[in-house]
Amino acid sequence: MLSKLRDAFTHYVSFTDEEWDLISQNIFIKSYKKNELLLTEGKICTYVAFLVGGIVRYYFVRNGKEITVQFFLENSFFSDYRSFIRREPSTFYIEALEDCTLLMISKDDIDKLYNYIPRFERFGRIMAENLYLSIADKTIRLMGESPEEKFSTLIHEQSELIRRVPQYMLSSYLGVTPEAYCRIKKRFLSTNNKKSVAAFA
Amino acid sequence: MLSKLRDAFTHYVSFTDEEWDLISQNIFIKSYKKNELLLTEGKICTYVAFLVGGIVRYYFVRNGKEITVQFFLENSFFSDYRSFIRREPSTFYIEALEDCTLLMISKDDIDKLYNYIPRFERFGRIMAENLYLSIADKTIRLMGESPEEKFSTLIHEQSELIRRVPQYMLSSYLGVTPEAYCRIKKRFLSTNNKKSVAAFA
Repeated sequence: MLSKLRDAFTHYVSFTDEEWDLISQNIFIKSYKKNELLLTEGKICTYVAFLVGGIVRYYFVRNGKEITVQFFLENSFFSDYRSFIRREPSTFYIEALEDCTLLMISKDDIDKLYNYIPRFERFGRIMAENLYLSIADKTIRLMGESPEEKFSTLIHEQSELIRRVPQYMLSSYLGVTPEAYCRIKKRFLSTNNKKSVAAFA
Repeated sequence: MLSKLRDAFTHYVSFTDEEWDLISQNIFIKSYKKNELLLTEGKICTYVAFLVGGIVRYYFVRNGKEITVQFFLENSFFSDYRSFIRREPSTFYIEALEDCTLLMISKDDIDKLYNYIPRFERFGRIMAENLYLSIADKTIRLMGESPEEKFSTLIHEQSELIRRVPQYMLSSYLGVTPEAYCRIKKRFLSTNNKKSVAAFA
């Protein structure tokens, strides 16, 4: 399991065996059952996690309504990065949508590793850049795309979500009502676009 | 002018005089007149800039309409960070809303500095984290706040923008029509909230 994580790290920066030994001493494993909450509003997110298996949802509650912001799939790093960086209470919930296995490092240990291993700082920078790209792409879509365009992006770039995530969460993620989501989906399927149909197969 | 930049760097990481000498050799100054474009759609953003004076707007064009995403004020670092990290053509325009003076470093030089000065990597990480926080805060507001709440945030946290940015850009920034913006503003002023009134004084 740790070798999967080392591969993921190496994708960004390669570490010597000695450096990796030090890093891996600070990693701990945690498992969550489907529907369990990894983080709740008001708690400080004190870790970065690598998702070995499963899928998590990142949402907040506004006027009693859940608003889904992001999903993270296996082999990705995630965190409530706002709460993590600022060490402030989260405004989010993170939920396991399937049984999940996580490899985690705490903020305190990450800060120590930044001091011990200069190359780890590069890993931190690239991780921050990637989390930036993910949320920036989301913002641009939110501001500039019509519901149809957002749906098209979902089908073409994130079709895995369609297979594994309940429809009401996807409609919230796209910022449309469940009814609008159904209408758009129907329209897409009726165009007989092969890739669209395949995504729902 | 460079001392202002050194202060800004030192806010994140302190460098020795030798390190700072090396960094400052890679910095160049550029000035832009009001309404001049610093970046246009289709061009790759190859720099990070520190805004010594002025204000810039970051927008994209969709169906012939300008959509304002962010503003950056003096003493802040900015870039089209998506284009910069991925080295891909930008989907944005960056416009000087006032006469602007910038201190800039190119991506190639930044990458060299990451290799020469390990502490510079820390600066890069913290800059990426801050740009993450800025766009993440924006996303959360977009997804969860009513137009009135967005307007309230503008007054209480970004009142400088009200003084220096044309109203039609602010309405686009909040994701409301200019008419809705006027209605909300009128309602706020009529409540006689001192801070609201002061923001428009």
